Amino acid sequence: MSSSQKESVGITVKKADDFSEWYTQVVIKAGLADYAPVKGFIVLRPYGYAIWESIRDLLDKRFKETGHQNGFLPVLIPESLLAKEADHFAGFTPEVFWVTKTGNNEIGEKLALRPTSETLAYSIFAKWITSYRDLPLKINFWNTALRAEIKATKPFVRTSEFLWQEGHTVHATEEEAEKEVMAILDIYREVIEDFIAVPAIRGFKSDKEKFVGAKYTTTLEGMMADGKALQMGTSHHLAQNFSRPFEIKFLGKDTKEHFAWQTSWGVSWRLIGALIMVHGDDKGLILPPRIAPVQVVIVPIHKDKDAEAVKAHAHELASELRRAGVRVHVDDRDEYTSGWKFNEWELKGVPLRVNIGARDIEKGQVEFVRRDSREKKQAPRAALVQEANSLLESIQYDLYSRAKQMLDSFISRPATYGEFKGVIEGRGGFASAGWCGSPECETRIKEETGADIRVIPFDHQQGGQDRNNNGNDSDSSNKCIYCGQPAKKVAMFGRAY
Amino acid sequence: MSSSQKESVGITVKKADDFSEWYTQVVIKAGLADYAPVKGFIVLRPYGYAIWESIRDLLDKRFKETGHQNGFLPVLIPESLLAKEADHFAGFTPEVFWVTKTGNNEIGEKLALRPTSETLAYSIFAKWITSYRDLPLKINFWNTALRAEIKATKPFVRTSEFLWQEGHTVHATEEEAEKEVMAILDIYREVIEDFIAVPAIRGFKSDKEKFVGAKYTTTLEGMMADGKALQMGTSHHLAQNFSRPFEIKFLGKDTKEHFAWQTSWGVSWRLIGALIMVHGDDKGLILPPRIAPVQVVIVPIHKDKDAEAVKAHAHELASELRRAGVRVHVDDRDEYTSGWKFNEWELKGVPLRVNIGARDIEKGQVEFVRRDSREKKQAPRAALVQEANSLLESIQYDLYSRAKQMLDSFISRPATYGEFKGVIEGRGGFASAGWCGSPECETRIKEETGADIRVIPFDHQQGGQDRNNNGNDSDSSNKCIYCGQPAKKVAMFGRAY
Repeated sequence: MSSSQKESVGITVKKADDFSEWYTQVVIKAGLADYAPVKGFIVLRPYGYAIWESIRDLLDKRFKETGHQNGFLPVLIPESLLAKEADHFAGFTPEVFWVTKTGNNEIGEKLALRPTSETLAYSIFAKWITSYRDLPLKINFWNTALRAEIKATKPFVRTSEFLWQEGHTVHATEEEAEKEVMAILDIYREVIEDFIAVPAIRGFKSDKEKFVGAKYTTTLEGMMADGKALQMGTSHHLAQNFSRPFEIKFLGKDTKEHFAWQTSWGVSWRLIGALIMVHGDDKGLILPPRIAPVQVVIVPIHKDKDAEAVKAHAHELASELRRAGVRVHVDDRDEYTSGWKFNEWELKGVPLRVNIGARDIEKGQVEFVRRDSREKKQAPRAALVQEANSLLESIQYDLYSRAKQMLDSFISRPATYGEFKGVIEGRGGFASAGWCGSPECETRIKEETGADIRVIPFDHQQGGQDRNNNGNDSDSSNKCIYCGQPAKKVAMFGRAY
Repeated sequence: MSSSQKESVGITVKKADDFSEWYTQVVIKAGLADYAPVKGFIVLRPYGYAIWESIRDLLDKRFKETGHQNGFLPVLIPESLLAKEADHFAGFTPEVFWVTKTGNNEIGEKLALRPTSETLAYSIFAKWITSYRDLPLKINFWNTALRAEIKATKPFVRTSEFLWQEGHTVHATEEEAEKEVMAILDIYREVIEDFIAVPAIRGFKSDKEKFVGAKYTTTLEGMMADGKALQMGTSHHLAQNFSRPFEIKFLGKDTKEHFAWQTSWGVSWRLIGALIMVHGDDKGLILPPRIAPVQVVIVPIHKDKDAEAVKAHAHELASELRRAGVRVHVDDRDEYTSGWKFNEWELKGVPLRVNIGARDIEKGQVEFVRRDSREKKQAPRAALVQEANSLLESIQYDLYSRAKQMLDSFISRPATYGEFKGVIEGRGGFASAGWCGSPECETRIKEETGADIRVIPFDHQQGGQDRNNNGNDSDSSNKCIYCGQPAKKVAMFGRAY
């Protein structure tokens, strides 16, 4: 948590005024990450990595509880293997980093740095799977993926190397594979909404936007505070698209040979980008309590004469909270003033602060300060744990509620293509609109407005209620917003990161 | 834990007859790892990765308890940065994988795949450290390192990419840095000896064998069952060798600028290689209980009519053990016979097996089978947890004792260079011998016998007792075993992996 004085100078722009600059300042000044020497790459500082560990542990636990195990794959993939599924290769090859030399020697076949591991994993799964007894195979890999970014990069959101997990499963039946796709999307939803406190719309990607090589892709799509969408996690049904070229076959109970059915799925440190953009404010980061590495920071406030007594009291409070399972830190550094510490912990987004001074000790009380609302609350010393837990729960709840309100406010239902363009080119957000299903309309819309289909929500598929809450009840969703032909689907369009 | 029938065919050679082939068969057939498509690279299967997770979690906990935090660094390092410390660069450059292209484009400066991260980390630390208030900085990275291996590769022991952790710390004083070097070596010793149950000799590397760029390297050196040594972990004092070229400077309390003092240290998945080679037997792997992903496997033995009752009972036993904190698995698969299961779990090295059949249930007993000694023991059903814990402790203790006996039996103290060669070219092991301290003698010995200085034990440095237990008390260690000049040090020579 150490950081030099100069870094902790606060954020100098407002979130509403210059969102992009505000974001970068939060990332750097809160000590989450820093730029690496190679353009497009970042380094994670301990505070940023601790947030990643929180998210990773939540997911890892759920993967294991549902019968997945972790494994390890090398970072290098031979070109011939990457090329084995043609669509897949075409999708990734422009952004592949290639190793062509070791030491001073040219190597025979060039080696790709893993842009994703389907091809490598499946060439090996084919050796492991011979019988129905070997299925299902459900493996997850915590590693990084490398994709040379041509567009402007942004820490956590778009970098040439990123931390992620990629899960790969193999099943005997298509039904089982499809269940897996949805089971994983549920795990993602739980962690994203209930822990990271960012609401997301679940649904399908269009064929144009799906994972290259998949039969279909399901997604969780979030909305950032600047009206741009962020894809937060995807779970793909690969059907037999890879098992055929990679010959993943098994002898069934019927004593016949079958090609297997597969899924793959992943989330990355983008989730950290999302929580910054959704929850942060002009003072810096705001962390949801359930994933905050430090949930409560205690700042002893003292003069020289009572310094030791106040510090000792602060550590007592900390012990009590720690015993109750609260992640707590005492900032008892002498080299910084209390005011400086307040600013730093606000910048770092610690959800709850306890100020403790000689007068509080006398009065038998503690002072809480919420990071999100900056409200202060006095509580009796005896109610410390109860009050801390209750405030942390409120903060968690309120962060989600505010984010949900923001998401809802960003969903519009334009009746005409003119209105559609107005929304996209104006405030942004998700424009919910009918779509005839043709890639041509989709492409034209993208070219003309910069918006693509972010998600085709499950709700619409199932004929349920529109997520639109702006009271506009026209039946425009029956027609394609672009060509006016009958709509096959209702899609959420938007500009995205 | 799923694996196809064909893999589980047992080990076909004896450990004593063909050690190298035996090792490879254990790795592959126990389902720890498999070969990747690129030569020199391996894939970790879930069982192998679970062992790595055990080791990682033990270390991670201890690192965090001693004030270290984790971070993330990219895998790519610009050539200019890698070249900044000349010795270091010369040491690594022959084995560097180079990225020279992205997509179809040549890139300007070629990029190295991390052979180790000192140069990258320190170029960034220099930005983070300005004041004594920023020190100490103690960061660890769980990642992989890439070094193109020219020698024959061996899973876990010598591969072109390996899982490891690399710790990097920065301190205000040399004294503090030197304390850190030793504190880390102590953590390594604890995990290696008390958990992995492999005894190791602690000491210094010679200047020739130390980490390129370090002032000195401390090491933990283990002995494998074939008489070859294995370096199990190293902790380096870097002094100011990197802080000067990378300009890691801080303003001290004395208001003057100082170059910082640094350490780096690491262990890798070699530790898995060590435990296979030290503990394994002709039946396969033997895992020390404290790091075994599965400590107890329960195999229900039944005929068709009592199958459900016996399986249910097996799961009851498992629940009881699980509640007591034992990592337990019930193998209730119908597609395999009990005999086949026994062989498989022996191959996989699960420390303790419980056989449970209808007769055991009637008699109110359980049958334990130790993996290491293969001894059977009946115990009353009521003593299940107590007996399991006591047996697991015995196994842990006995594995270490046997390994320690083996290590001791491999330490010799040749009186002459002729005896020395006889030992090295014969049974192998550590030859403890006097050394004048000149790199020339060290190099000649290496050229003539294949043995190098594995470790200069701390004991000898401190004038303590020799580790030799073969009763040879000649004073040969006063003279250099090669040139006969007065010895400055007593070193352990040996051939190594």
